[in-house]
Amino acid sequence: MRIAVPLAHAHRLLNHGPTTLVSTAHAGRRNVMAAAWVMPLDFEPAKFAAVIAADTFTRELLVASGECVLHAPTTDQVDLTYALGTHGGRDGDKFERFQVASEAASLVQAPLVRGCAAWLECRRVPEPAIEARHDLFVLECVAAWADGALWADGDWRFVDGGPRTIHHRKGGLFFATGSSLAARR
Amino acid sequence: MRIAVPLAHAHRLLNHGPTTLVSTAHAGRRNVMAAAWVMPLDFEPAKFAAVIAADTFTRELLVASGECVLHAPTTDQVDLTYALGTHGGRDGDKFERFQVASEAASLVQAPLVRGCAAWLECRRVPEPAIEARHDLFVLECVAAWADGALWADGDWRFVDGGPRTIHHRKGGLFFATGSSLAARR
Repeated sequence: MRIAVPLAHAHRLLNHGPTTLVSTAHAGRRNVMAAAWVMPLDFEPAKFAAVIAADTFTRELLVASGECVLHAPTTDQVDLTYALGTHGGRDGDKFERFQVASEAASLVQAPLVRGCAAWLECRRVPEPAIEARHDLFVLECVAAWADGALWADGDWRFVDGGPRTIHHRKGGLFFATGSSLAARR
Repeated sequence: MRIAVPLAHAHRLLNHGPTTLVSTAHAGRRNVMAAAWVMPLDFEPAKFAAVIAADTFTRELLVASGECVLHAPTTDQVDLTYALGTHGGRDGDKFERFQVASEAASLVQAPLVRGCAAWLECRRVPEPAIEARHDLFVLECVAAWADGALWADGDWRFVDGGPRTIHHRKGGLFFATGSSLAARR
């Protein structure tokens, strides 16, 4: 079940550096791609930095709409994540092509991809110079959600054998998020 | 043993989103802090984006010297990473206080912290507007290294029971980098 995450905790959804999916929609068109280079940027308001290459359909829709949804896909979605990261969205709707189940977001037009561990509805904070020079986008999170089976009380609760977030290495090779460690205080 | 990583592969050292240590040095002073919000930004030249808060000693030394070293610490360094992330560097040399063994880098003044999984010697690409507004720094990697027991042929080679990179969740809680997964091609 998808549960609301307070915006003050939104950065924790991506703090551990998982790979993401980025969905966008504008004027009847939509897309979803994989993006490994996404990270938190600020706590409150919750902001994120995302690298979105210049020639992507995602970038066209992100700039046109000013909105996107960042997702943390799971170990059950490795094949989907790789497929969405290696096919462009201009050749046809990737939701149909890859049978991506989705539902409406709360505050943005971009859809939520079902089955993920986390969803962050975001609005673009325009930074034209850094977008042009480094393909880097600043995004403010306006609504955040997590899978209630994986997240509770502001932290991940992964269990052995269950789904976890994933981290991209290169070309379709990933790491699952691993075991929990606590530092000595 | 520390082995050289070709700059074309440098992004893969942090592609999976591990937490980092950032070392700096300038005019006889040095520092090292923990930073979770660091990610690749470009392939060639290899660039990285790092959030370095405005009031930190690290930022003072980074701006003064134009250099830093990004490190990927391991599961053996969880306590050290947390300690370096929760103590400021203005109160006294953290290398001495926390007995951090280090050695000289090849192209920058900032030292290499021993025992890490990866080291990225970097030079600041000045972006004053984005540094001021978002505490975000663009860094170009000029030399990269990995622990040859953990890295080979351009990819991580973690083994069960051995050291791995780590991912920060919140307040001293981490995940180890987990098991390997390959997407269907």
